[in-house]
Amino acid sequence: MRVLGVDPGLTRCGLGVVDGLPGRRVRMVGVGVARSDPASDVDQRLLTIEAQIEEWIEEHAPDTVAIERVFAQHNLRTVMGTAQVAGIAMVAAARRRIPVALHTPSEVKAAVTGSGRADKAQVQTMVARLLGLDELPRPADAADALALAICHLWRPAGALGAPQRPPSSGLTSAQARWAAAEQAARRRG
Amino acid sequence: MRVLGVDPGLTRCGLGVVDGLPGRRVRMVGVGVARSDPASDVDQRLLTIEAQIEEWIEEHAPDTVAIERVFAQHNLRTVMGTAQVAGIAMVAAARRRIPVALHTPSEVKAAVTGSGRADKAQVQTMVARLLGLDELPRPADAADALALAICHLWRPAGALGAPQRPPSSGLTSAQARWAAAEQAARRRG
Repeated sequence: MRVLGVDPGLTRCGLGVVDGLPGRRVRMVGVGVARSDPASDVDQRLLTIEAQIEEWIEEHAPDTVAIERVFAQHNLRTVMGTAQVAGIAMVAAARRRIPVALHTPSEVKAAVTGSGRADKAQVQTMVARLLGLDELPRPADAADALALAICHLWRPAGALGAPQRPPSSGLTSAQARWAAAEQAARRRG
Repeated sequence: MRVLGVDPGLTRCGLGVVDGLPGRRVRMVGVGVARSDPASDVDQRLLTIEAQIEEWIEEHAPDTVAIERVFAQHNLRTVMGTAQVAGIAMVAAARRRIPVALHTPSEVKAAVTGSGRADKAQVQTMVARLLGLDELPRPADAADALALAICHLWRPAGALGAPQRPPSSGLTSAQARWAAAEQAARRRG
């Protein structure tokens, strides 16, 4: 299963593609950052970011796009742009009938470090370790996108020993159906 | 000049098309509401709203799309969806090279009622009066979309006697260029 993780942002939007299966090793397929010029108008910036996200989807054909769930309580100065990029990533996936999953920052941190309160450096270190990378993925947005993808790959099977049941939160209904089918296949196999 | 006003929202997104020129009478071309099912997943809801906005753009071919500027301080429960729909409307316009303008709720209220603190009923009453409608446009989201379009049409010329100069705020650079060209044409004519 292939997941495109998207850490939404208007100036820098992290993108990371990871292959794997619940509870199995994960492998990095690609990592990068979509950027837009802060001096441009917002509509043009969103269009630029959309084009880059669409290129990544077309090139890597992910089975799921995992996007950070944005909260209104986030950094007030940047939250609107972040929410808008998250929305554009959702629609870019939905237009291609690719399931979308949303994960909170603390879910992501917990998935890769074991703690929902881990700092950026800890997340970067664990992402590099889990993917067997020689260097830390930089910038942090790129590492966060990889962490999102790993979080999504591992979440249905319960990376920390949770029940083998997809949690209802963070999964769209299509995604929940997939997880249920996968679980059924595992039981048969 | 034709403006499509968009009052962004995930459950109800107001859409209103108005023809007019700065300081001249305005005429309603169309009004409606794009809706999405609150029981659906967010990505599917955004896709549904996007399709409806694109239909309105294709059918009415506006010269500008005027969208309400969303602030993080708005209703916390709905602000993320509102911001995402605003972003999707911006990109739908930008993809077609249609200029985008953002106006704050108080700019819109001031444009149609003379007061930035007018209530919903006052806005609805004035929108109906300015457009010569027999009935108040309902729901309020539809009236707000028409008010946004009127606000944008009247704003460059200064409906309240402001200088004949496009304000830098609320205009994208493309929009500012248009306003400057129109102003030059007016001077020649």
